[in-house]
Amino acid sequence: MASRGGIGGTASRYIVGVDLGGTNIVVGVMTADGSEQHAMQSIPTRADQGADAVVERIVQLCERVIAETQAATGATRAQFIGIGIGSPGPLDRERGIVIVTPNLGWRNFPLRDRIADGVHLSAELDNDANCATLGEWWIGAARGARQVVGLTIGTGIGGGLILNGSLYHGASDVAGELGHISIDATGRKCGCGNYGCLEAYASGPAIAQRAREALGGGEPSVMSNLVLGNLEKISAATVFDAAQQGDELAGHVVRETAQFLGIGIANFLNIFNPEVVVIVGGVTQAGEALFEPLRAEVRRRAFAPAVAACRIVPGELQGRAGVVGAVAIFAQARGLA
Amino acid sequence: MASRGGIGGTASRYIVGVDLGGTNIVVGVMTADGSEQHAMQSIPTRADQGADAVVERIVQLCERVIAETQAATGATRAQFIGIGIGSPGPLDRERGIVIVTPNLGWRNFPLRDRIADGVHLSAELDNDANCATLGEWWIGAARGARQVVGLTIGTGIGGGLILNGSLYHGASDVAGELGHISIDATGRKCGCGNYGCLEAYASGPAIAQRAREALGGGEPSVMSNLVLGNLEKISAATVFDAAQQGDELAGHVVRETAQFLGIGIANFLNIFNPEVVVIVGGVTQAGEALFEPLRAEVRRRAFAPAVAACRIVPGELQGRAGVVGAVAIFAQARGLA
Repeated sequence: MASRGGIGGTASRYIVGVDLGGTNIVVGVMTADGSEQHAMQSIPTRADQGADAVVERIVQLCERVIAETQAATGATRAQFIGIGIGSPGPLDRERGIVIVTPNLGWRNFPLRDRIADGVHLSAELDNDANCATLGEWWIGAARGARQVVGLTIGTGIGGGLILNGSLYHGASDVAGELGHISIDATGRKCGCGNYGCLEAYASGPAIAQRAREALGGGEPSVMSNLVLGNLEKISAATVFDAAQQGDELAGHVVRETAQFLGIGIANFLNIFNPEVVVIVGGVTQAGEALFEPLRAEVRRRAFAPAVAACRIVPGELQGRAGVVGAVAIFAQARGLA
Repeated sequence: MASRGGIGGTASRYIVGVDLGGTNIVVGVMTADGSEQHAMQSIPTRADQGADAVVERIVQLCERVIAETQAATGATRAQFIGIGIGSPGPLDRERGIVIVTPNLGWRNFPLRDRIADGVHLSAELDNDANCATLGEWWIGAARGARQVVGLTIGTGIGGGLILNGSLYHGASDVAGELGHISIDATGRKCGCGNYGCLEAYASGPAIAQRAREALGGGEPSVMSNLVLGNLEKISAATVFDAAQQGDELAGHVVRETAQFLGIGIANFLNIFNPEVVVIVGGVTQAGEALFEPLRAEVRRRAFAPAVAACRIVPGELQGRAGVVGAVAIFAQARGLA
C-alpha cells in the first residue's frame, strides 16, 4: 500500500507520545517534525491494578492511536519509528528505568523497555515535567527561546529547564525539581520532607487547602456553595471558579497563589535569566486574574535586567504538552528535532 | 631573544587575568593551558578616584605582571596573547561593557576595550563570580565536573553556573545571581529590593550583623573583646575567630550561617542536580565548623538522589580563583581551554 502524507515523495515518519500521570494516561501520534498531530486519547491510569496492568493499558492505547493514524493517513506500520515516554520520576534515562514514583507505587521499574517490547518499537524515557516543558518549547508558548523555565502545576509542581536550547538533566537526571525550592525556610511542611517548598503553597491541593483554611474564618463565600458545603471537595478549580464569579475570599486565595508563584519565579529569573517562563497545568485557566498579579510580584522581587528579558506565559498546548514533549524527546534522541 | 618555557619546541602562550573588586584589584599571569602561574599582585581599587584612574591602575598592574613574568621566564612580549577580566556586573559581555556596579559607581563603562587599548592586547570580560567559579572548575576544587554551582561569599553573595561543562550566562548575561534567591519571602530586606535573599543572611556583612544582634541580648562573648567593645568593628572574620576559640554565641552564629547556606544550597541541589557545589571566599576559613552543619542541613532538605550526586566543598584557589577564572575566560574564548 502506498503511503499518503508524504512530503516531496518521502513518506512521513510518525512518533507515538505517551504521557503517564498518576490519574490519566494520554497517548498521541505526531509526525517526527512536529508539524502534524494525529489520534490523541486518554484513559485512567488505575495504578492500583499494578505496574503490569498499567503497561498493558499503555501498550493497547499505543496500538489504538497507531491504528487510528494509519486509518486517517494511510501510513504503513513501518512509518512509525518509535515511542517517547514521559513519566513521573526520579528515573534513569539511560537505562529507561523509573526509580521511584510515589503516585504509582513503583520502584526500579523498566518502563521504557516494557513499552518498547509491547509495541515492538524503540522508545525513549524522560521526566513528565521535562516533556511538558519541551513540548511547549517545540511547538507551544516557548518556541524559539533558548532559555526556558517550565513549571507544571497540578497535584504537585514539577519543573523543566531548557538551557542553551537543550533540556537540562543535571548529574543524575534529577535536575529541575522547581516545585521543591524553599521560599520560606520555616514554612509549611512539604511532602518531600523540606519546609516551605513552592509546591506546599501553590500546587492544586495546596491552593485548595489554603482556601479551606481561609473559609475556616467563617467569612461567607461562593466556594462553600459550589461544593454543597462539603469543604473536602474544594479543589483549585473551585477556587478559580468562585474567583471568576467575583467571590472575595476566592479572589484573595488566587492573589495569594500569584504571590507565592511570583516569589518562586523571581528566584528563577535571578538564577536563570530566562527568555520565557511557561506555566503548564490547570491553574493557567485562572488566566490574567492569576498572571497579572504574578508578574507584578516578579517585577517587585527580581533584578530589572532579568525581568526585562523574560516573558511569563501560560502554556498553549493545554493537556497535550506532555505528549507533544514525549514525541519531541524521541525525535531529539534520533536527531530529528 | 629565544623564549624559554616552551613545550616541545613551541613557545608557551601567556594570558593576563584581572579580578576587579570593590576593595582590591588582583592581577596575575598564567599559561594558556592553566599549567603554570606567574606574578600575582594585588592593589587597592580606590574606586573613589573615578573610573579613569582605576583603569590606569589596572593597566599599570598588567604591565608590571607581564614584565615580571618576562623576567622570570624569558618570554617575549608576543607570547602574551590577551587579557581576561572579571568585573562586578551586570555587564554586556559581547560589547565588553559594565552596565552597573553599585560598588564602583560605574554605568555603561567600556571596561574591556579601555584595558585592551591600554595594554595593547585583546581582552574578554565576564562577571567576577562567573570567573571565580570557572577558576575552581579549571584547576581547583571543581575540576572535572560537568555540573557546578559556585557561590562567592564576601561583601555580597555571587554565583556562577557551569552546566554541561560550560559557563551558563542566560538570555542577557545576568544569570547566576544565586545570592538573590529568597529563602524567606517575608524575611530580611535585601539590598536588591527583595526580601529574605540568601545574601541578606549569609554574606560577610550579614553574618557580622547577626552577630551584633545576638550580642544585643547581653550574653558574654569573646567577640566583644576581639573588637575592644566597638561592635561596629565586628566582621565575619571576628565571628569565625571567636567560634574557633570556643565562644558559644559565635558558634551559634556560625551554625546559623551554615543553616541559611544549607537552605539555599538545598534549593540549588533540587534545581541543578550538580556534581559539585564550590564555595569561594573568606567564610571558607571557618572550615568544617561551617561545612559540617551546612552539609547536614542540605541532607535534611534536598532530594536524596541529588544529595548522593553532589560534593559540597570549599574552593582551593583562595584569593586567586577570580584571576585564574579570568584567564580561563580568555583561553576559552580563543578555544584554548
